[in-house]
Amino acid sequence: MKNPKVLVAIVAIVALVGGAILGRLAGGLGGAASLGEIAEARGLTVEEAEGALSSFIAPGDYDPYIMFASGGHSGNLHLVGVPSMRLLKTIPVFTPESWSGYGQGADWSETILDEGSSDKQATELAWGDTHHPALSETGGEYDGRFVYINDRANGRLGMVDLRDFKTKQILDIPNMQTSHGGVFATPDTDYVHVSSMTPMPTTEDGFAELEDYEESFRGMSTFVAIDPATGRGDLGKSFQIELPPYTQDLADAGKLVSDGYAFINSYNSEMAVGGVMEGNDPIEVGASQKDFDFLHIIDWKKAESVAAAGKTEMRNGVRVITLDTAIAEGILHFAPEPRSPHGVDVDPTGNYISVGGKLDPNVTIYDIELIKQAIAEKDFDGTDPYGVPILKFESVVAGQVEVGLGPLHTQYDGKGNGFISLFLDSAISKFTLGPKAGVAEEDAFKLVEKIPVNYNIGHLAATEGDTVAADGRYLVALNKWSIDRFPVLGTLKPQNFQLIDLEADKLRVIADMPIGFGEPHYTQIIKTERLVNAIEVYEVGTDPLTFEHSEVATHAGEARVETIGNDVHVYMTAMRSHFTPDVVRVKKGQRVLMHITNIEETPDATHGFGIPGYNVELSLDPGEVVTVEFDATKTGAFAFYCTEFCSALHLEMQGWLLVEP
Amino acid sequence: MKNPKVLVAIVAIVALVGGAILGRLAGGLGGAASLGEIAEARGLTVEEAEGALSSFIAPGDYDPYIMFASGGHSGNLHLVGVPSMRLLKTIPVFTPESWSGYGQGADWSETILDEGSSDKQATELAWGDTHHPALSETGGEYDGRFVYINDRANGRLGMVDLRDFKTKQILDIPNMQTSHGGVFATPDTDYVHVSSMTPMPTTEDGFAELEDYEESFRGMSTFVAIDPATGRGDLGKSFQIELPPYTQDLADAGKLVSDGYAFINSYNSEMAVGGVMEGNDPIEVGASQKDFDFLHIIDWKKAESVAAAGKTEMRNGVRVITLDTAIAEGILHFAPEPRSPHGVDVDPTGNYISVGGKLDPNVTIYDIELIKQAIAEKDFDGTDPYGVPILKFESVVAGQVEVGLGPLHTQYDGKGNGFISLFLDSAISKFTLGPKAGVAEEDAFKLVEKIPVNYNIGHLAATEGDTVAADGRYLVALNKWSIDRFPVLGTLKPQNFQLIDLEADKLRVIADMPIGFGEPHYTQIIKTERLVNAIEVYEVGTDPLTFEHSEVATHAGEARVETIGNDVHVYMTAMRSHFTPDVVRVKKGQRVLMHITNIEETPDATHGFGIPGYNVELSLDPGEVVTVEFDATKTGAFAFYCTEFCSALHLEMQGWLLVEP
Repeated sequence: MKNPKVLVAIVAIVALVGGAILGRLAGGLGGAASLGEIAEARGLTVEEAEGALSSFIAPGDYDPYIMFASGGHSGNLHLVGVPSMRLLKTIPVFTPESWSGYGQGADWSETILDEGSSDKQATELAWGDTHHPALSETGGEYDGRFVYINDRANGRLGMVDLRDFKTKQILDIPNMQTSHGGVFATPDTDYVHVSSMTPMPTTEDGFAELEDYEESFRGMSTFVAIDPATGRGDLGKSFQIELPPYTQDLADAGKLVSDGYAFINSYNSEMAVGGVMEGNDPIEVGASQKDFDFLHIIDWKKAESVAAAGKTEMRNGVRVITLDTAIAEGILHFAPEPRSPHGVDVDPTGNYISVGGKLDPNVTIYDIELIKQAIAEKDFDGTDPYGVPILKFESVVAGQVEVGLGPLHTQYDGKGNGFISLFLDSAISKFTLGPKAGVAEEDAFKLVEKIPVNYNIGHLAATEGDTVAADGRYLVALNKWSIDRFPVLGTLKPQNFQLIDLEADKLRVIADMPIGFGEPHYTQIIKTERLVNAIEVYEVGTDPLTFEHSEVATHAGEARVETIGNDVHVYMTAMRSHFTPDVVRVKKGQRVLMHITNIEETPDATHGFGIPGYNVELSLDPGEVVTVEFDATKTGAFAFYCTEFCSALHLEMQGWLLVEP
Repeated sequence: MKNPKVLVAIVAIVALVGGAILGRLAGGLGGAASLGEIAEARGLTVEEAEGALSSFIAPGDYDPYIMFASGGHSGNLHLVGVPSMRLLKTIPVFTPESWSGYGQGADWSETILDEGSSDKQATELAWGDTHHPALSETGGEYDGRFVYINDRANGRLGMVDLRDFKTKQILDIPNMQTSHGGVFATPDTDYVHVSSMTPMPTTEDGFAELEDYEESFRGMSTFVAIDPATGRGDLGKSFQIELPPYTQDLADAGKLVSDGYAFINSYNSEMAVGGVMEGNDPIEVGASQKDFDFLHIIDWKKAESVAAAGKTEMRNGVRVITLDTAIAEGILHFAPEPRSPHGVDVDPTGNYISVGGKLDPNVTIYDIELIKQAIAEKDFDGTDPYGVPILKFESVVAGQVEVGLGPLHTQYDGKGNGFISLFLDSAISKFTLGPKAGVAEEDAFKLVEKIPVNYNIGHLAATEGDTVAADGRYLVALNKWSIDRFPVLGTLKPQNFQLIDLEADKLRVIADMPIGFGEPHYTQIIKTERLVNAIEVYEVGTDPLTFEHSEVATHAGEARVETIGNDVHVYMTAMRSHFTPDVVRVKKGQRVLMHITNIEETPDATHGFGIPGYNVELSLDPGEVVTVEFDATKTGAFAFYCTEFCSALHLEMQGWLLVEP
C-alpha cells in the first residue's frame, strides 16, 4: 500500500464555496459541488481525483483505444479499453478455453490446435507463451484486419481475425524451437516476422552436444508470407534467414525511410551454455561478459529477391537462406550494441532505431541513413566469428542518452520523444530524438523527464506508438511486479499495468490495473475506430473457420438425425429457448456428431451447449455452426443444456441425450 | 452506445469561479479547479463524474471489498475489487490454466483434476460450469478461510483455500449428474450444500427411458461435510436427501432464527421432458403449465440426526436419505411458490425467505416462523404426487410485492430492504421487508424504487449481502447481455457488471465492468479485511496441496540428479536468475521427474518453468515445490526457461534439457 497521503481538503472547500456563490447564478449546484465532496469523503488527493476523472469511461460510452495485450504463459490475448483499463475480452490462442468452447470440442478450434502442433513438438501442446502481438498494417498504420502473436515457448505464430475476433491459425514454424523476436508486421503486412530466441541444433534429429554449440546450433529469422484475404501465413511462400547461435531477442520492422529493413538485437554473443554443476559459469554470468552484442540489420527486401532467385535450401518445407548466403548477398549486417540488449524499436519517422542494453545506462539511437551509408561504404570493423560484417559503432549511432538503470524498451509519441522503460530503476525516462524526428538540434538526444512506476517495468506501450501514426495520447507501463499495490490474494501476485496521460503537463501514473490472469509481455494500442471489420453476428449457417456457409448448417425446419453406419449425425438448431431436436437417442458405442446451428440473428443472442459427463462445451454465437464429435461410451440420460444465459426461459433450454445400453 | 447526453457545463463554471475566488484564500487551486475542467473536457456529466470519483481506487490503494465471481463455463473463479471493479485475480478450478501451471503438468494440480473426474463421468473432464461461489462462514459471517464453487454441468464441487488462493479439491459428488442448487455454507460451515438441477435415473447403469421419468429419475440435495482444518469435503461424513424429479433450482441456508433449515426452489413440477420431434411440447412450454411450483423446505439438522441414526441407504459411498424416509421423518416439506421460481434468498435476520417466480411479477416473501408453525400444526394442503406435504401458501407467506417482470434473485442491505433483479424488465427493484427486519408495519412489503440496468440482469450481489452482516454499501448487477455497451469486438459479447452505490440518495448505476472472459452467474462480496489468512510466500519447500514440507523439496546446495531404473529424478532449485542444475542430460525413452523448489522468500519472486515442445509449464511461487513428470519421447536440445519475468537477467534464466538419441 502506498504511503499515507496528505489530503487536499481544499478540493472540498472550493467546491462548497463555489457552490454557495454560484447557487444563485446557476440555480442548483448539487452535482458540481459534489465532486469535491466525494473526493474528500473518499480520501482522494487532487491528483488522484484528476486521475479518476481522466481515466473514467462513463457507463455506455466507449474507450477510444483498444489495447491488445499478450497473456504470457496463459497463452491468450487480452483486449483492454484505454483509458478505462477495463478488460473487454480474452481471446484464447494457444490454450483451450471453455467459455468460448475453444479446444473444448468445437471442430473449428480442434482443427486449429491440431494443426498447431506439428511433428516438431515432442507431444501435443495445450499452452503457449504469448509475448508480442502485432496488428496488421497498411501503409505503416494499423488497418484493423488481423492480429498476430507468437508462442515464445514452442516456436509458433497465432493469427486472430478481427472480424469475429477468433483465432484462425496456429502456424508451427519449422527450424525454430522458440519464437521470441518481436513479432512485427511489415508496413503492408506482406510478411509477419518472428525470430527464434534460443538457437536449436540444425541436425536431423534435433540433437547436438552443448560442446558443439557454436558449430551445430543456429538461430533463425522467419518472414511468414501473409495471404491478404484470409490473414493466414503460408509457409510455402515464406522464407527464413539463418543466424549465428546468439540469443536473438526483440525485433522491429523498418518503416518509411527504413522500410525494407528489419532489426533484431541479440545477447549472449558469448555463446555461453551454462552447466554450473559441471564447473561452468551460470548462463547469466557467461552471457554478460562482453561490452557489446550485435544488432542484426536485415535487408529483407533483398532477402525476398534472393529467395525468389532460388538461392535457398529447403528445410522442412521452408526456403532457408543460409548464413553464408545471407553474408555473401549482403542481407545481414551487424552493429555493436551495448551490453545485453533487450529492446529495439524504430521511431514513427523510420529514421531512428533505439536500443536498450539492460546492463548499460544509456539508450543508444541508431540512424538508418548512417547504417545504409556504412553498408554502402563497407565501413566495417571486421566480422563476427561467422563472417558477418560489423558496422562501426561510431559510424551508425546518432546519439546516446543516459536514461537510468536497466533500460529495456522504447515507445514514441510522434512528437519527437521517446519513452524508455527502466527495469532496475522501476521508472520510465522520456528523452528526445534528433532533428529527423523534428527535434531542434540543441534539444536533440536529451533526457526530458523520469518518473517512477510500480514496479519492475518490462515493456511499455504508447497509443499507436509502433506505427507511423503514433499520436502521443496515452502510455501504459507493463510492470512485472506489483508487491504491495493490491491486497494479498495468495502467493501468485498480479502484474500491474499503469496508465499515463501523455497530454498532462507532467508525466504521472493516474491509474493501476491489476493483471491477475496472465503475464502480458507486450501490447499494441489501436484506435477503436480502426476496428471497422468487427462483426456482431454471422450470416446464419457460417463456419467460423472459413467464414463460408457450412455444409452442415441446419436452418429452421431442417433439424434431423441421420445414422450412417456407426455414426449418428444430429443436425440441430438453437434458438431462444430450445434446441431442436431436444431428445437425442443413441446406443452405447456409437459415434455422435452434433452439427449445431445457432439460427439467431440478434447481436448477443449467444447460446452455449454443454453435455454433463462428456466433456463437451461449445459457444454458439449468433449465426454460427459448430460440430462436436464424441463416442457414446457411457450409458445414461444426460441433460444437455444451453450454457449461456440467453433468455428468461434459459434454464428450460435443455434436452436429453439418451445413451441406451 | 448510450444516448447523447447533455453536458452539465456548470461543473466547469463552478470550479473555475470557485477557484478564482478561493485562489486568494488558499494559495493555488490548480488541482481543485481542474476537476470540473477535466470532467467537461472529457464530456462527463455531473452524474458521470460523481460515478468516476465514487468508484475510483487510487493507485496503490486497496479496494475495501473483494467480489468472488464465478466464471460460468470458463470453469474459473474471478476476484474483483469493489468499488473499482478491477479484476484482481482469476483462479482456475475445473479447467486447466497455464499461467498458474494448473493442469499443465504440475503434480498437485493433476492430482486435483484427476480426483475430480470419477467413474461417474463418461470421460476425463477439462471444464466445469461454475455458478455459485460460497464463502465459508463462522457464526453466519464470512471468515476468510475457504470458498466453494459448484460445477453445474457435471455435479461437482470445487474448494479454494484462501491462504494461497489455489484450488485444493474437486469433489465429484455421487448420485447427482448436475449441481446447480445454490451452493451455500451452513452458518458455521459444518456443511456445504449443493443440489442437483436436472434429476438423473437411479438405475444401476444410469439409464432410464424418458417415459419412466416420474418413476426412475430423482433429484438430490447433498450436504457435504467439511473438515474445518483443511476445508475439504468428506463424502464419508456427508449425507444426501433424495428429492422428486422436479428441476431443483437455487437454494439458500437458513440463519439465526432459521438456522438448521435449507430452502431449495424448483420448477418443472410438471415433469416435462420435451421431445418436440416426437410430438411433445418443448420443455419451456411443458414446464410452464402450473401456477405453482414447490419451495423445498429441508430440516437439515433433523436430517443429520436421521443419518446419524443409520436410517439411510449407502449409494456410491454416500449415505442417502430416501424420499420416503425424508417424508416420514419430517425432513422435507413443500410450500407453493409462484410460477417457475428461480431465486430463493434468506434475509440477514433469518426471518424472511424471498422467492422470485420468473413468470410472476411479484416477489413472494415467506416467514420462517409461519413455516415452523405450519409444520408443527400440520397445516397442509395435501401432498405432491410423491407424498411430500405441502404447506398452505397463505399460512406461510408474510407478504408479496409487485416488483416487475421476470423477478429472479434478491439481495439485502441489512437495513430492512431487499433488491430484486428483473430479467425481463432489465431492472432492479428495491422493496421493504417486514417488521422482523426492522421495518415499520405501515412501510412493510412495499416497492421503494426501481432502476434500469443494462441489460437482462441475472443475479445481483450486495456487500456481504448473503450473511448476517449485510452492510448495504454496494450492489453489483450481473447483466447477461451487453449489446451496445461496449465496442464491437466480434460475435461473442461480454457480460456486464454494473456497480450501484447504496449510500447514494437514489439508486444509480455508476460504472460498467465488461466481463469478456466468462459468464459469471453469481458472486459473493466480502470485506477485504476479512481475508486475514492470505499468505504471500510459502515456507521454502512447501507442497501446495498439503501445506506440508515436501518430501522432494530441494534447498540451496541440495540440487542433484538421481537415476533410478528408467526414471531420472532432477532435484532442482530456482532462484533469481538461475535454475540449478541448468543442464539436464537424459536419454530418449527415459521418464523425467523434475522436482523444482523455488527457494525465494521474497513476495512476488515467482518463477515459471517451461520446456519447449514438451507441453510443460509451471508456476513456482516463492517457497513452492512442484513436480512435473514426462517421458523423453523426442531427441533434441530443449531450452527450458523461466516463464515469469523475474529479474533484470530473467531472459538468461534458462538451461538445457538434452535428450540424447
